[in-house]
Amino acid sequence: MARRLKLIIAYDGTPFAGWQSQSHRNTIQDHIERAFERVLGKPVRVHGAGRTDAGVHALAQCAHADLPNDRLSAARWTEALNALLPPAIRMLRCQYVSNDFHARLSAKGKIYRYRIWLAPVLPPFECHRAWHTPRPIDFKILKRAAKRFVGTHNFAGFAANRGKEEKSTIRTIYSVRVRQEGPCMAIEFDGDGFLYKMIRLIVGSLVKCALDKMCIEDVAARLDSGQVGPPRFAAPAEGLFLVRVRY
Amino acid sequence: MARRLKLIIAYDGTPFAGWQSQSHRNTIQDHIERAFERVLGKPVRVHGAGRTDAGVHALAQCAHADLPNDRLSAARWTEALNALLPPAIRMLRCQYVSNDFHARLSAKGKIYRYRIWLAPVLPPFECHRAWHTPRPIDFKILKRAAKRFVGTHNFAGFAANRGKEEKSTIRTIYSVRVRQEGPCMAIEFDGDGFLYKMIRLIVGSLVKCALDKMCIEDVAARLDSGQVGPPRFAAPAEGLFLVRVRY
Repeated sequence: MARRLKLIIAYDGTPFAGWQSQSHRNTIQDHIERAFERVLGKPVRVHGAGRTDAGVHALAQCAHADLPNDRLSAARWTEALNALLPPAIRMLRCQYVSNDFHARLSAKGKIYRYRIWLAPVLPPFECHRAWHTPRPIDFKILKRAAKRFVGTHNFAGFAANRGKEEKSTIRTIYSVRVRQEGPCMAIEFDGDGFLYKMIRLIVGSLVKCALDKMCIEDVAARLDSGQVGPPRFAAPAEGLFLVRVRY
Repeated sequence: MARRLKLIIAYDGTPFAGWQSQSHRNTIQDHIERAFERVLGKPVRVHGAGRTDAGVHALAQCAHADLPNDRLSAARWTEALNALLPPAIRMLRCQYVSNDFHARLSAKGKIYRYRIWLAPVLPPFECHRAWHTPRPIDFKILKRAAKRFVGTHNFAGFAANRGKEEKSTIRTIYSVRVRQEGPCMAIEFDGDGFLYKMIRLIVGSLVKCALDKMCIEDVAARLDSGQVGPPRFAAPAEGLFLVRVRY
């Protein structure tokens, strides 16, 4: 009988075309499915808690896979998959779970972090891991604008169309925390779910406010309208980290 | 009249063939010289405080260059060079100095850090930035062995031959500090100078001791002998960082 394996995965998104499987096969899902197939000799489908875009990182993405005729312990799966995966994708932990656990459907929420590097020079070790914004930004305004997003809203104005329409664009953000340590600002979002490009569009607006290129009222109006509205700016993918999935 | 510009440089050594200029031109020195040449229209020689090997990183390498007919301020040089250099090489600061400053000859000492990742899984963001040693090692023994290297010694037993002989293999290590934060161990060396591969050969011995594959007495005997002696093991380049050059 098939057993369900839960996977906790970290990845540096830089060299990959995002999470979701694509025909060129250079996605995180593809790499993990290929690793399973090499061990088991047959294709395995991996179900992620959610997609991340090209260039977006994960400290602890979650996924599951149903493994037929499996004889490996969860610890051995961690070792076997890491031996086959590129070093930019690491299996942190594997664990057998009951068949009613589902990486996406059982998720109660997700935590994302967006990192911004506020200094004239981006250190080489921060390259592809933060958005470099050399101009000074107003931390207080950014913090005040960030607070407006907390709560249940129709986030249509802060989502990109994915081709097929999302069923609903209403989501709840439980908290937005803004911290600054030296030149690094981190904005952490805890929510029940996030629409396509939602965090990058929110961060884009926050930084525009903090650079005095947009006012908080305009951001609030867009949020309240539930409309896509005028052209928007998405912060680059490289600053975004999926911190963890809550169950 | 030529003016001497002092350069403070950070680099991720992963994509480069070390500091020193080579015919294929993919070294850090080559990249910086090429950037100068693109601004000035003529070749400029860059003198580093010391070479770093392929894969070795720098948080603050130091170098100098003599710039004929220069009209740029030091701050503009920082910007201009960063605009032309790959993002893995960053000019942190440029400063005009008197002509008797010499990046290598004026150096009083150097600080290097070696990072070891002690956990079964190397996180993707530590890849190429630490030596992954999944087996548990004895921190106390490593610390005790490290102390033996402090002082003035003939380090011939902990140096690789560079082809042309070094004039002297006697060096002074002022301090070796070993710290551990979670799974990351950092060994920091402060010394008046280091021979080719000296730190990697020392770290290789320290870890062999801590893994109980070598005893401290053997390490001490090799140090005291001043001889190259039996085959040695150099820790990989990716864990090594030039922290700064002292003047």
